Amino acid sequence: MAGAGGEGEAPALRAVRRCLVAFPAEARELGLTESVPYLDSHLSPLEFYREWVCPNKPCIIRNAFSHWPALKKWTLTYLRKVAGSKMVSVAVTPNGYADAVYQDRFVMPEERHMLFSNFLDIVEKKVISPSVFYVQKQCSNLTEEFPELLGDVEPEVPWMSEALGKKPDAVNFWLGESAAVTSLHKDHYENLYCVISGEKHFLLHPPSDRPFIPYGTYFRVCVCICVERRSD
Amino acid sequence: MAGAGGEGEAPALRAVRRCLVAFPAEARELGLTESVPYLDSHLSPLEFYREWVCPNKPCIIRNAFSHWPALKKWTLTYLRKVAGSKMVSVAVTPNGYADAVYQDRFVMPEERHMLFSNFLDIVEKKVISPSVFYVQKQCSNLTEEFPELLGDVEPEVPWMSEALGKKPDAVNFWLGESAAVTSLHKDHYENLYCVISGEKHFLLHPPSDRPFIPYGTYFRVCVCICVERRSD
Repeated sequence: MAGAGGEGEAPALRAVRRCLVAFPAEARELGLTESVPYLDSHLSPLEFYREWVCPNKPCIIRNAFSHWPALKKWTLTYLRKVAGSKMVSVAVTPNGYADAVYQDRFVMPEERHMLFSNFLDIVEKKVISPSVFYVQKQCSNLTEEFPELLGDVEPEVPWMSEALGKKPDAVNFWLGESAAVTSLHKDHYENLYCVISGEKHFLLHPPSDRPFIPYGTYFRVCVCICVERRSD
Repeated sequence: MAGAGGEGEAPALRAVRRCLVAFPAEARELGLTESVPYLDSHLSPLEFYREWVCPNKPCIIRNAFSHWPALKKWTLTYLRKVAGSKMVSVAVTPNGYADAVYQDRFVMPEERHMLFSNFLDIVEKKVISPSVFYVQKQCSNLTEEFPELLGDVEPEVPWMSEALGKKPDAVNFWLGESAAVTSLHKDHYENLYCVISGEKHFLLHPPSDRPFIPYGTYFRVCVCICVERRSD
């Protein structure tokens, strides 16, 4: 940032800054690709670990779970029939950004418990809401909250479990509108993201971008959106 | 180093220095062990890659190649019988340090071509030399210079080749006196060091020690130790 260092900045400090600027560029040159490759072929767990997990390289695997019944079965009608009558946890935000910095606060979503069918009404635009709703719990909510859907997928991806040498810590079910956004964050898990329907956009920063990703400490607040609440 | 920064050093630069000091300590806390563990059990190539190669952790594997005939066969008498009459490349240094900085020069060993039996005479102290002799070529000299010894070992270690997804770039045969030292260096290869006889001491620095390992640019010189030469 212009002027951030002040006039008294030592030449050595400027050299440090130059190194920090050069670092992400060098990392990209050395091992990062500009685009995330699509893999079609079947990789062994060892190859997958060696070529993608270990060097922290993202990839997109086509047809990795084409045998899952969910691919054909999971329509909104089906989901409503199977799980519509149950209470689920839904993240509700004014603008789609959960866990985002707003002014000087770290704003967490309201976690609302509602009938899954009411949530589906919003997704299907049968009910219009100014808020953005997102089923996005990260506490293994597929196994915890939606056991009736488990038969349509695998509770683990066998080659990934073999590659990592352990079963998944969490298996999450996410369903949301296109406005739903997961804010910039770092994750200490290896992630296997399976898109059943719709699309997901990822913006990935390599660890070498760290010097240019701002960090800060904020007060955490939870915004409860009361306009949605019935007065019962 | 005391006073290296001078009095004009900005507080930010001091903060950078503090980070560099904290970095190796944090890396050790996070993932490095104080001692290099001995592994007894048989690891699969995937486990070996995941637990040791990928996180750059050294380990010592007991009984990894107890089926190699070399373990019983490779006495100096046997080596003399099989390969004594051939010319081999030997690194000769005044003090055992090959590729070492001496004063303001980077001193490379003299690479002397000699009969392997003459080299063995020195190892066995049948001939006394003030210099240190070390068969230490790194251009796959086991396969290139000592093909007659190949039958006593494996030309590759199958589980390592499978783990790395490739055959070895080089298979080296090293034989030397206890005074022979390989200087501090970095290696962009994965190394599997098989000790057939004797012992080898490794001093390993994790990559996080980088800020405290001095780097420099030197003129390269080769010292030829002429006192050893016959006047033919």
